[in-house]
Amino acid sequence: MKPYSDMTKEELLSLKEQLSAEYDAIKAQGLSLDMSRGKPSAEQLALSMGMMDTLSSSSILKSEDGTDCRSYGALDGISEAKTFMGAMMDAPADQIIVYGTSSLNIMYDTVSRSMTHGVLGSTPWAKLDKVKWLCPVPGYDRHFSITEFFGIELINVPMTPEGPDMDIVEKLVSEDDAIKGIWCVPMYSNPQGVVYSDETVKRFAALKPAAADFRIYWDNAYCVHHLYFDDKPVLLDILSECEKAGNPDMVYKFGSTSKVTFPGAGIAAMAASKANIAEIKKQLSMQTICHDKLNQLRHVRFFKDLDGLMAHMKKHADIVRPKFEAVLDVLEKELGGLGIGSWIAPKGGYFISFDSMPDCAKAIVAKTKEAGVIMTGAGATFPYKKDPKDSNIRIAPTFPSSEDLSKAAAIFVLSVKLVSIDKILESK
Amino acid sequence: MKPYSDMTKEELLSLKEQLSAEYDAIKAQGLSLDMSRGKPSAEQLALSMGMMDTLSSSSILKSEDGTDCRSYGALDGISEAKTFMGAMMDAPADQIIVYGTSSLNIMYDTVSRSMTHGVLGSTPWAKLDKVKWLCPVPGYDRHFSITEFFGIELINVPMTPEGPDMDIVEKLVSEDDAIKGIWCVPMYSNPQGVVYSDETVKRFAALKPAAADFRIYWDNAYCVHHLYFDDKPVLLDILSECEKAGNPDMVYKFGSTSKVTFPGAGIAAMAASKANIAEIKKQLSMQTICHDKLNQLRHVRFFKDLDGLMAHMKKHADIVRPKFEAVLDVLEKELGGLGIGSWIAPKGGYFISFDSMPDCAKAIVAKTKEAGVIMTGAGATFPYKKDPKDSNIRIAPTFPSSEDLSKAAAIFVLSVKLVSIDKILESK
Repeated sequence: MKPYSDMTKEELLSLKEQLSAEYDAIKAQGLSLDMSRGKPSAEQLALSMGMMDTLSSSSILKSEDGTDCRSYGALDGISEAKTFMGAMMDAPADQIIVYGTSSLNIMYDTVSRSMTHGVLGSTPWAKLDKVKWLCPVPGYDRHFSITEFFGIELINVPMTPEGPDMDIVEKLVSEDDAIKGIWCVPMYSNPQGVVYSDETVKRFAALKPAAADFRIYWDNAYCVHHLYFDDKPVLLDILSECEKAGNPDMVYKFGSTSKVTFPGAGIAAMAASKANIAEIKKQLSMQTICHDKLNQLRHVRFFKDLDGLMAHMKKHADIVRPKFEAVLDVLEKELGGLGIGSWIAPKGGYFISFDSMPDCAKAIVAKTKEAGVIMTGAGATFPYKKDPKDSNIRIAPTFPSSEDLSKAAAIFVLSVKLVSIDKILESK
Repeated sequence: MKPYSDMTKEELLSLKEQLSAEYDAIKAQGLSLDMSRGKPSAEQLALSMGMMDTLSSSSILKSEDGTDCRSYGALDGISEAKTFMGAMMDAPADQIIVYGTSSLNIMYDTVSRSMTHGVLGSTPWAKLDKVKWLCPVPGYDRHFSITEFFGIELINVPMTPEGPDMDIVEKLVSEDDAIKGIWCVPMYSNPQGVVYSDETVKRFAALKPAAADFRIYWDNAYCVHHLYFDDKPVLLDILSECEKAGNPDMVYKFGSTSKVTFPGAGIAAMAASKANIAEIKKQLSMQTICHDKLNQLRHVRFFKDLDGLMAHMKKHADIVRPKFEAVLDVLEKELGGLGIGSWIAPKGGYFISFDSMPDCAKAIVAKTKEAGVIMTGAGATFPYKKDPKDSNIRIAPTFPSSEDLSKAAAIFVLSVKLVSIDKILESK
């Protein structure tokens, strides 16, 4: 098949007629499929059911240091949970706080406290005229929402195949002391699946921000979510790089087991410099007495250690990898060479990022919806939900069954083709 | 024994010599006892061990409406948890949000959001010159800490046997629009065990605050923690009273199962008007995707309903009541009629509140500590940890074993006597 833009008007109209018939036939089936959110499938959730048996009424519910996990105490988590999450997140146990179930909640709370109390003695951000934040795009909608909620001005920074465009990041943070942070998903970025290169990590660690309270929010949500364990990338540890570069306090790392065990019922943690951790623990002691230590214990007893975790993640990969490959195959087979869209084949994470021709994404998502397939809303991957090019679409292949996924992918490519033909016809 | 103040200097000196010998003998035993915090004992925790078996790898982990509790969703809690917590907290299920494990965390978050975002459209409190808060005293130290943390000015309001002094509350909130809230523990108040009278609740509901965003923080922490189930008080429902009085939005109710099941691993909830709940759910959607629905399911399947909960609480009462009675017996027997302290025998909750002669509480707590008994720090029950009379001491009898409790109570009364004698001698 030749690129659509090389086709004549007549060829396009004839193709449109044929594709429309296909589309209408599928639409008539009244399907209801969902490729919108990064949720594990039922089959993946089943992998962790054994965790439900790790604690029973006959268990001794004490942590390794003797803390009774059924009562108050251990604000920053039980020691074995700190060790476990530290191993997963590449951080020393004494620089970890284990929280409740949601790393998003940790990030929200951290921004919120910075608003009301500042950071390591700085002016509370709520007292400043202006606070700004860097948002690599496309990115994670819930990150952007947090900072938008606090009235922070969001600035787009383009992503490259190596991570955020560091020339722009370096320039902006060194020039503007209103810029207080940046959202990063350094491994298998949401939605593109980009893994930050060593150079990118080192340039992050060496930033010279104008604001002393500038912080890198390093959300390593997919650090163990490899699709190809035999060929998995290695991400440089930002925490030790920041230390080496003389910026030990500049980064907060976040992670959770949300997509390892059960979303909403996992455990989440933060890693940072000792100075940051000490301040946050002090503040945290106002907010709560402790988090759920039984759930921490449940997780550690189920996985035991990093090896146990990795063995578990390989099982996830075996379920998820064929789904990614199925969607990528359909994209390649149906859209390859047509010049109406591009995508990256990720090596892990939860998403495939698709870029349509300019000004087509909203129409494509509407078109798939009309035929019964819910996609993430077009624009959702940008601050304020505004994709300046209206071209990025996030595909989440994990949740549907393989059968549903094939159908959904077929509807997606059909929608891309139909919308693209209309767009090209506008200029013919 | 006659009142100490009626004794001659010689009698007091002779008594002091005898008591000092007793004290030194106990001190020589090198005891280490703790009556400082309101923690359930191991025997109480054992009551909930069966809950560890309610979910297993063979359980269907879906809520009654089909929600998969292993994945994202149900931001405000699963429906059966809302029904259950609503029954416990005397509120309709559709006016409940079930959160994670800590009601303290809910209160902190609610104050924090009011600081950054205001309340139902009001000016964010962080943007005001001054925010003030009413603190019935003595009260709960962690309440006071939250508002102090946000730089809110704390104003003492004396407690009466019917609740906070409502003449003062009414006057202050109607005159000063900087007053944005009040901390209340309406049933078995911490530390006095006072149950707010119907008149107090009705006067709360009928408040005419100068600030439209004034809120009553109604922390019903001990709503099911009766010591005498055959003779338990009934607390009027503030939420419906506020509605009747035309102030539907003026109150937030808080509750948790922290001291019902496992502190730090229970479930917590908030109840409020539909307008408040709608606003908070919207804000909450920025903070997290959902709370731990598996723990909600675990709780509901363990208790089933309010009857199940009450049967469980009776078991708690059977363990806790003898401890309260043991301490009260020692107080009555050893201090009754001496005129050196007063206390109230509570019908529920977690504390006995003791008032020493003025300017003695710190010395008494230091004296018990010297003999190996940790009490809550004197002053802790007041804002800024400043008890103007230096007389209130909170006794927490639940955690120690009965044997330890007798020893600790003996040391306590001995310390009260010795410190009081010194105080009286000063003026002889």
